[in-house]
Formats: sequence, C-alpha cells, structure tokens
Amino acid sequence: MSAIRPAGRPRRPRRKLQTPNPEVRERIMTAAADLILERGFPDLHIEEIVEGAGLSVGTFYLYFDSKADLFVALATDYTERLRSRMSAAYQSEGSPLQRVRRGLDVYLDFVEEYKEGFVYFLRAADGMMTSAGRLSAWTFEVHAKNLQPLLEEAIRVGEMKPLNPELTAQALVGLTQHMVTYWLDNQDRYSREELRAFLTAATAVALAP
Amino acid sequence: MSAIRPAGRPRRPRRKLQTPNPEVRERIMTAAADLILERGFPDLHIEEIVEGAGLSVGTFYLYFDSKADLFVALATDYTERLRSRMSAAYQSEGSPLQRVRRGLDVYLDFVEEYKEGFVYFLRAADGMMTSAGRLSAWTFEVHAKNLQPLLEEAIRVGEMKPLNPELTAQALVGLTQHMVTYWLDNQDRYSREELRAFLTAATAVALAP
Repeated sequence: MSAIRPAGRPRRPRRKLQTPNPEVRERIMTAAADLILERGFPDLHIEEIVEGAGLSVGTFYLYFDSKADLFVALATDYTERLRSRMSAAYQSEGSPLQRVRRGLDVYLDFVEEYKEGFVYFLRAADGMMTSAGRLSAWTFEVHAKNLQPLLEEAIRVGEMKPLNPELTAQALVGLTQHMVTYWLDNQDRYSREELRAFLTAATAVALAP
Repeated sequence: MSAIRPAGRPRRPRRKLQTPNPEVRERIMTAAADLILERGFPDLHIEEIVEGAGLSVGTFYLYFDSKADLFVALATDYTERLRSRMSAAYQSEGSPLQRVRRGLDVYLDFVEEYKEGFVYFLRAADGMMTSAGRLSAWTFEVHAKNLQPLLEEAIRVGEMKPLNPELTAQALVGLTQHMVTYWLDNQDRYSREELRAFLTAATAVALAP
C-alpha cells in the first residue's frame, strides 16, 4: 500500500535496492515516529528524520518514495501490531462475547501504551489517501474483519441477536474508537475503568439475544 | 470561533468593517462551499473563491482572516443548520426515545441532502484546530449536548436504562456518524433503510431499561 500524491505532483522515481536492510528501514521508522509525536507530521522534513536516524536523504529514498509513504508504513505497522494482539485475545478461551470483551481490554492497553500518539495517527490517517483507499477506512476494515467471525460465532451459539455481523463489527470498532478519542480528550473527568464499564454495559445489552 | 494557524505563520491583521454586509459574507461562503466540494479545500486559492463570488481579494479579507477561518465559518454554519433541525425533532410529540429516533431521520435526511459534501466537511474538520479546540470535537459536542437532555428525560420516565447520559449522548452521535460515513462509502451494498433499521435495532436494545 502506498500514499497517493495530490494531483500534479509527480512521483520521484525510486532506485530499487537489491537487498534492502530491514534494520535501516526500522531505524528510519523509529526516528520518524518519535519526531511525529513531538512535532506533528505536516511540518516535518525528511532531512530531520534522517538526521535523527543517522542516515542520509539518499538512503531515505532507497526505502520510501515520500514522507507520506513513510507515514502509511508507520500506520500500517501500528495497525498490524494491534490487530495481532487482538487476534490473540479473540482466539483465547471462553465464550465469543467474553473474547470480544478481552479484545476491548487489549485495545485499551494499546491505547494507554501510545496515548496521544494513538489519536495523532488516527487523525492523520483520516486525511491520507492510499492505493488501498482512505487510510482510516482501511484500518477500520482491518479491525472489523478481524472481529466479524467472532460475532458470527456469537450469533450461532445464541449469545448475540442476529444483527448483520458486518455492520455490527463496523459499529463496535467505530464506537470504541470514538469513545477512546473522547476519553483521551477528557481524562480528567473519566477513568479508563469508567470508559470500559460504559462500553461493556452499552454493548452487552445491544448484542444480547 | 476562529482557526488557529500553524506555529510561525503570523496572522495578517484584519481591517474591521464598521457595517459588514451579511449578503457579501454569504456570497463568499456559497462560492467557497461549491468550490470545496468540486476541488477539495487544500488546493483551493482565495483568488478562485472571490472570482466565483464576483468580489476582490481585498473584500475577502474584510470578512475572513484566512481560508481556514472561512472553512470554520462554513462548518459552523452546517453544524448549526443540522442542530436546529434536530432540535425541532427532539421537541416534537411522542416519548423521549421516539423523538431520538425522529432526530435520526432528520440527520439521515441532512446527509442525503449533502452526501459527499457532508463527509468531506467531517473529515476536513478533524484536522482543523480552532480557538474552541478541534473542530470535529466541537461539532460532536454540539450534537451530544443537544441530545443529552432527551436521554435524561428517557431515563427519568424509565424508557432507558440509567447509563451515564453524557457518555451515551457522545456514543450515539459518534456511532451514528461513523456508520453514516461507512454507508456513504458502501452505498452499493446498503440502502438508507438498511442503515436506519440497523442503527435503530442496535441502539433500541442498548438503551432499553
């Protein structure tokens, strides 16, 4: 997946590496992630990223086509990390809805680990077009597709009422993300435990057969 | 409410009009709204907006400090228009939850009226900082504050279980907006009626005492 450039700005042709070094790529991404959280993405220059990584601008362009491509790579990376942790929760022991709830805890752990960085990436992803469509729609889709089989199982075993599982998965992912964003903006007024209790109570009844 | 400029870009001092003409302001806003939907906001120049309105750049700066301020004015205008229509539904006849549902229909009518424009403004609002905080958080707050008294009434008359009304209002507004965005991206697969039926079924039970 790559970023799509605004019309009229031609893509700089990238020299392909025969044997890319995953450690170099990782160094660029780590330096960029730190700088993005510190200063925001729009005002960041590639020169500063490579300086932080102790590399040259030329090296940057061996690994990424553009700053936007680097952002897409970072967002993809975070999304995949979260998806794989949530998958583990979804595949643990217990009834389908117990596992859904365990997935929520994993999600909240992840949010607490990255805090403002989490929201920053969510918001920037909303404005970013990629070859796979809008970056934010893609991340919603990843998490909804991951959750959907569990909802189908919950319906099969009679633990959930037979709502459309695709729409329900989208609704749960969208609702959770919205409320997490609201919570991060209002941490002085609500604790993680209050947010969790609210989401659990609201969705428990919504899904009850 | 005004837009906040990125650090380092000074605000151009605005000459104040003794008697601003609301029709001129309206002409600028209408011309801008049409151009934004056609071409997007980031690539739009003030010169093109005033040309569309048959005015000069100087006149633009008598009414707005910047292009971002104009965007904030447009988004505020749309939000207020929707809020006032929803208020009318909330104050109509029927039980509190019947009126909440009437508000949903009004919201879906508004979305159908503006379609892609609606989503465009939502997305652009997410990245826009204003003197009243993030523009998107502000619009969520406007709609949630409008809905909250109705939820409190529903709890009082025993039509809704006693969830925190502030969080519930945020959750309903956030969920509805997320699902509307998803629906607009997937109109080939879901009709408005299917979206409405899903939202009604999912929230009816979530709110039931």
